[in-house]
Amino acid sequence: MKAAGVVVEYNPLHNGHVHHLKETRRLTGAEVVVAVMSGNFLQRGEPAFIDKWSRTELALRSGADIVFELPYRFAVAQASEFAEGAIGILAAARCSAFCFGSEDGRIGPFMNTLRLLEDQKAVYEAEVRRLVKTGISYPSALSRAYLSVADAETHQKPLADLTKPNNILGFQYIKAARSSGTGMTAFTVGRTGTGYHELGSDPDSGIMSATAIREVVREAGITDEVLRAVPGHTVRAMERFREEHGRFGGWDVFWPILRTLIIRDGAHRLRDVAEMTEGLEHRIVRAALAAPTFTEFMEAVKTKRYTWTRIQRILTHVLCGIDSGEFSRFREPRYLRLLGMTQAGRSYLNLYKDDFGLPLVSRAASSDDPMLSTDIRASDLYALGTGEKPGKDFRTPPIMTG
Amino acid sequence: MKAAGVVVEYNPLHNGHVHHLKETRRLTGAEVVVAVMSGNFLQRGEPAFIDKWSRTELALRSGADIVFELPYRFAVAQASEFAEGAIGILAAARCSAFCFGSEDGRIGPFMNTLRLLEDQKAVYEAEVRRLVKTGISYPSALSRAYLSVADAETHQKPLADLTKPNNILGFQYIKAARSSGTGMTAFTVGRTGTGYHELGSDPDSGIMSATAIREVVREAGITDEVLRAVPGHTVRAMERFREEHGRFGGWDVFWPILRTLIIRDGAHRLRDVAEMTEGLEHRIVRAALAAPTFTEFMEAVKTKRYTWTRIQRILTHVLCGIDSGEFSRFREPRYLRLLGMTQAGRSYLNLYKDDFGLPLVSRAASSDDPMLSTDIRASDLYALGTGEKPGKDFRTPPIMTG
Repeated sequence: MKAAGVVVEYNPLHNGHVHHLKETRRLTGAEVVVAVMSGNFLQRGEPAFIDKWSRTELALRSGADIVFELPYRFAVAQASEFAEGAIGILAAARCSAFCFGSEDGRIGPFMNTLRLLEDQKAVYEAEVRRLVKTGISYPSALSRAYLSVADAETHQKPLADLTKPNNILGFQYIKAARSSGTGMTAFTVGRTGTGYHELGSDPDSGIMSATAIREVVREAGITDEVLRAVPGHTVRAMERFREEHGRFGGWDVFWPILRTLIIRDGAHRLRDVAEMTEGLEHRIVRAALAAPTFTEFMEAVKTKRYTWTRIQRILTHVLCGIDSGEFSRFREPRYLRLLGMTQAGRSYLNLYKDDFGLPLVSRAASSDDPMLSTDIRASDLYALGTGEKPGKDFRTPPIMTG
Repeated sequence: MKAAGVVVEYNPLHNGHVHHLKETRRLTGAEVVVAVMSGNFLQRGEPAFIDKWSRTELALRSGADIVFELPYRFAVAQASEFAEGAIGILAAARCSAFCFGSEDGRIGPFMNTLRLLEDQKAVYEAEVRRLVKTGISYPSALSRAYLSVADAETHQKPLADLTKPNNILGFQYIKAARSSGTGMTAFTVGRTGTGYHELGSDPDSGIMSATAIREVVREAGITDEVLRAVPGHTVRAMERFREEHGRFGGWDVFWPILRTLIIRDGAHRLRDVAEMTEGLEHRIVRAALAAPTFTEFMEAVKTKRYTWTRIQRILTHVLCGIDSGEFSRFREPRYLRLLGMTQAGRSYLNLYKDDFGLPLVSRAASSDDPMLSTDIRASDLYALGTGEKPGKDFRTPPIMTG
């Protein structure tokens, strides 16, 4: 059975994601689509809108056959590590192809960019280092260095626009796949409708960004606009989550506990938190003492040097108690944590699980891997923050559909 | 001006406390009564029912002239350290006497006990060590060793009954005063009515224990029975606190945040918490994962070896983020933190503050003493847990009455 992989967050799953899953199957010719999905905390350093089991079910009902959890170590990490972890899992699960959504929509420019940056590696990296020293953020430095290298080219070949968020992530997947020598073929699907960050949406298209959906649902509930932009399963999953928890996941909900943790730990303990950078811990403590809301807190903490996303990831590490030692201990995935499967997914797992590059973990209790302990702790903290009891990873068998 | 000291918690202040303050003035002949009072966390390892400023006002309206905060380091500590800190503060504030409530009510037996234990020091301490090794708690060992030493005496002199909680604390005050050579004279007042731990009360006497008052107010509000047992100021302070915070302080209210902290920190970090003893951190984490309420949690954690109080103090350290290093850094008070004063108290301070044995801190912002930072952090965590904003120590000037 041929399998193709996708890297997803589904926060929450909308029509654009359904399109991506369908196109992945069509373009790759795969019989089985394997999704590697962030758990309850996301790459942009946010608690998920609805929990990972709800999102797993949506994935399975929308075209994925198998959902593996991207371990916290990679899910709440910068784009390159996020991509390396996700691609490592897809390769270990014997995917022969992967497909990502991008603003560009064509794979050629990404390949041209990859070759360009391989050829110009020394120049590019020197430029990144120079720019970082000027005090701008690392992602800005990457983007500007790339532009200067690309500009210097003769422009005979189209290059990927690495100022666009999905292009950036897609490029990281390709780079990770290349450097790990997986031999997986890369595909991309053009993202239809609004970009990731845009809160606006096109009411007629049935396409809204996940950010816009969360915003609208938090403010006004499940409006007609949202109903058009997501499959019925997503509507029911959101309704169920709100009914069971009385709230959706997000920093607004986790702010009181985060604030307490920051004030309780103080700067000297926050210094050890994963990805914390010299001095930021003092800004964080001062802001937490003064700011009544998460938004005001972030306004007080942010600086030109660190992206909003980077700071949010650090705060996720604060919330989940992830220190540098724990975070830097492992750099590669260590298991395939099964969150759910369809009948086809089940057949695929039965057929190939002994040939997987990593152990398959279907029951959390069957593994004592320290990387998995981190995932479970993060999951427990999400549960506590959303008014649920901890230990759900031990109580919940993989979701089965179809 | 002659000053006498009292060591108090007022959780909340009731008629028995008013009696103690009156008797202190009468017995010692003091013009000024200095109260050293626990802050927002108490010696039994509990969040205060109402906050320290509310309790300061009650103290001033009930006979105290000056209220100093007993620093967290001593307030949330075993009886001997609690006493040493409190007596150190009273001595530094030039009190020539102190007076404590006791079940016994006469000072003679305490003095006899002090001499007996000084004479029998080696025998007593060997017996304590032997008993601790059998697996009973330290306070039980102290109590039993004392009984065996006392039994061996000829009983020519009456001895204090050191199985009673207020006698135990009182004895620690006397011992601390003696060993620090303060020269303060000790007085004691018999506690009228119910003992500390008894939940029951005598409805006709107008005397209820603070424990009973909290229990009744939590369950049934301010009943007639409570109205008879506390001064009107206490009634109004409780009403105001409940109105402003929607709750009273207590472990039930702090349990969700404590539980989150325990699960987030995990056993390897809890190991460093002040007063944590080998292995207990694992029991604490297991219990936190399983127990939905604080009471169920405590039932799962408690062992014969540690008293309920000891465990609660450790949990207070968990909540406030007090590790062993911070806790053991200082063993003596370093300042007189003024929470409030009457006119007489003010005159006393103006007259003697330059002769005090420790610096007077009237404004939190004027000191950067690390021991005070701990007090402020604890105060902030209490504020967050009771739905208030942090930083109250910086915003609140000393309470002034009369």
